[in-house]
Amino acid sequence: MSANTTTRASTFVDEKRLAGRLAAMARIGATEKGGVNRQALSKEDAEAQRQLVDWGNSLGLKPSVDAIGNLFLRLEGTDPSAAPVLSGSHLDSQPTGGRFDGVYGVLAAFEAVEAIIASGARPRASIDIVAWMNEEGSRFAPGMMGSAVFAGARELDTVLAVADATGVTVEKALADVRESLRDVPERWLGERAAAYVEAHIEQGPQLEKEGLTIGVVTGIQGKRTFKVRVDGEAAHAGTSTRAERKDALLAAIAMVRALADALHDAEDIVKFTVGRFDVKPSAPSVVPSSVDFSIDLRHPDSQVLQALGDKVRPLCEAHAGVCAVQVTELSTAMSLEFPASLRGLIRDAAARLDLPHRDILSTAGHDARYLHPVCPTGMIFVPSHLGLTHCEAEFTSSADLAAGARVLAEVLIELACRQAVTNTMRSLPLSSQCSLD
Amino acid sequence: MSANTTTRASTFVDEKRLAGRLAAMARIGATEKGGVNRQALSKEDAEAQRQLVDWGNSLGLKPSVDAIGNLFLRLEGTDPSAAPVLSGSHLDSQPTGGRFDGVYGVLAAFEAVEAIIASGARPRASIDIVAWMNEEGSRFAPGMMGSAVFAGARELDTVLAVADATGVTVEKALADVRESLRDVPERWLGERAAAYVEAHIEQGPQLEKEGLTIGVVTGIQGKRTFKVRVDGEAAHAGTSTRAERKDALLAAIAMVRALADALHDAEDIVKFTVGRFDVKPSAPSVVPSSVDFSIDLRHPDSQVLQALGDKVRPLCEAHAGVCAVQVTELSTAMSLEFPASLRGLIRDAAARLDLPHRDILSTAGHDARYLHPVCPTGMIFVPSHLGLTHCEAEFTSSADLAAGARVLAEVLIELACRQAVTNTMRSLPLSSQCSLD
Repeated sequence: MSANTTTRASTFVDEKRLAGRLAAMARIGATEKGGVNRQALSKEDAEAQRQLVDWGNSLGLKPSVDAIGNLFLRLEGTDPSAAPVLSGSHLDSQPTGGRFDGVYGVLAAFEAVEAIIASGARPRASIDIVAWMNEEGSRFAPGMMGSAVFAGARELDTVLAVADATGVTVEKALADVRESLRDVPERWLGERAAAYVEAHIEQGPQLEKEGLTIGVVTGIQGKRTFKVRVDGEAAHAGTSTRAERKDALLAAIAMVRALADALHDAEDIVKFTVGRFDVKPSAPSVVPSSVDFSIDLRHPDSQVLQALGDKVRPLCEAHAGVCAVQVTELSTAMSLEFPASLRGLIRDAAARLDLPHRDILSTAGHDARYLHPVCPTGMIFVPSHLGLTHCEAEFTSSADLAAGARVLAEVLIELACRQAVTNTMRSLPLSSQCSLD
Repeated sequence: MSANTTTRASTFVDEKRLAGRLAAMARIGATEKGGVNRQALSKEDAEAQRQLVDWGNSLGLKPSVDAIGNLFLRLEGTDPSAAPVLSGSHLDSQPTGGRFDGVYGVLAAFEAVEAIIASGARPRASIDIVAWMNEEGSRFAPGMMGSAVFAGARELDTVLAVADATGVTVEKALADVRESLRDVPERWLGERAAAYVEAHIEQGPQLEKEGLTIGVVTGIQGKRTFKVRVDGEAAHAGTSTRAERKDALLAAIAMVRALADALHDAEDIVKFTVGRFDVKPSAPSVVPSSVDFSIDLRHPDSQVLQALGDKVRPLCEAHAGVCAVQVTELSTAMSLEFPASLRGLIRDAAARLDLPHRDILSTAGHDARYLHPVCPTGMIFVPSHLGLTHCEAEFTSSADLAAGARVLAEVLIELACRQAVTNTMRSLPLSSQCSLD
């Protein structure tokens, strides 16, 4: 396979077709303010999956679903013994999410595959377009359930038992979604993969600020998440004195304040977020008896992240006052670096296509985090207007979106044709130690 | 009517009967932790009203309901031209409320009336036991709807249009409750009243601390309530820098912290409570875009209350940072003093019954606040264990509850027999200027 052939495939990427599919997906769960609310395993998510399968059918792609609800569309390769190359992202969104986060990576892969078909290329390995189940984790927490179970990082049964705020389990919600995909055959969970490439909007302002089109993602910054439970005592707002009160809200506020101060860095690299803060019993004339709040803490340096995260518990305990506090760490993901081989493929493709590019660290987490230990993994970023994301105002131009799909098409066909040594499975060595040719 | 006759009536108060009725009511909406969840116009509230009507029927009392859902049980007096004496409180509770707040005042009036009947006394004026609609204001805000509309302080139509968090209006919920009271005739809204006496648990620890049984309530401390809306911007927890963020939660926390500091008094008289604090979109990995929080501010000195309340808006605005803030005052109730005449009746009754008593200010609001401008109004407090209230642990001994009902029986029969001048209506001068004999 020569560079000419792969360049040819990318020329078949159609900006309008990609934009049209993104617009169609944006109508599923559309919010009034131009965003989407398409939370994992909702009926909107099911509708989006159905749409993807229908598009795939008309292109001759073979759909399949695994036991955790990851959806695959396969372009069959010429060599059935070759492990497939995976590319995709997720279709689910935050409650007030944007039109690109996740769905772009799935549709960019779709566009790349359609371009490869149109170019007449016949890749040796199969290419699987994948939509991972529940990346966002807003309905069922924590997120990245599909990729984590695929990669063997979480147990299927544990994840199936997770319930949303109304008590519905992942298992039940999955069964409902499966109903609308009755024609789609089941696939073995955690099949071998030769490589994984994920396209995504940057979710930060760097590329736009520097006038660049492509981000060659070097790795993903680490993240530690916690839940904090503060227990005080309900009391009457008009009769209980300050001395008598055990006000869970004031205690929780003191904790958040202390954390914000202690995690403050002049360089503005630390990311500290309290996104949930639930007060009980939530009545204007009752002193709060309890507060449950979340902590999301990120830093690109794993050692710094470790040290900062270790401050959370003692700081919360120090500011509990007369209340009781319980700090639980929900997840720890240290920073990771994608293999140089795959970063090189992406960089070379961007250069061949004359697209201005740079290396960039992903400060957001992605399904690629879980694929990284399973097979050689890489990510392609396109610009994100003002860096706005996880909100309805999210925006990337159609030209930039198409540019990302062109790079992806180049990389996918290169991986699927050159692939020879890497029949990797989850049991094989870390991806950074895998060879790509 | 001699003191002998009134003393006689109070001897018919039955501690066990009163405790039994309170226990029966506590089963309606009972929570696991021994409290009640019987919010206004819920099916539990309807069930409690039905129970009260049934008890009244078996005692020969005449039930009636007015247009705002206040429920009355009348013991007919011998003089139909005499304005009735009112006594009661409310049957609704906070979401995690106790077994005594409100319902005690209704059942103490019921017990007093049953005792008066048993004593053979025939009062000249009718005595109306009343259960005011929605005192707590936890489902439909603000509270004290029934007494406020009865007193003409709020418009019927405005209150009927208030909706709960699920969009159900007071009008719709009232119609549902009315269904279960189809046999109860409607009564003219805001009928004249000769006097109003409300028994209630103290909701503070003073009486218990001093080993006293009866509180002669001197008045009600003032209260100003506000809602504060903080608008920031949703952003990704992993990618947006601190400099880029408009974090509504951190801004709201700075406001609450500043308010708590500014309203701090060494004497611990100011009551400052933030009971609701609702964060949107409430996802662990999304920087909060908005916070709505409540402020409940009380002080017995109206001038101090005015001055402290005036600090709320500037303090919130000063700590908004990059966010926008909107402060709305929901209600202003200055401190009030009950008429000396009625306080004297209560004090004398407690003395005659050899019950240790003291004058006490109510730091909580009560329906009596709205009756005060309409007719001579007074309140009787009984001890509240540790002052715990608006919570499931609320407790008062049966002996103290019965003592309060004895004082109430004495006061009610005195008012209903001696009443002569006070055919007061809402249009008459303030109660503190009314004569009681």
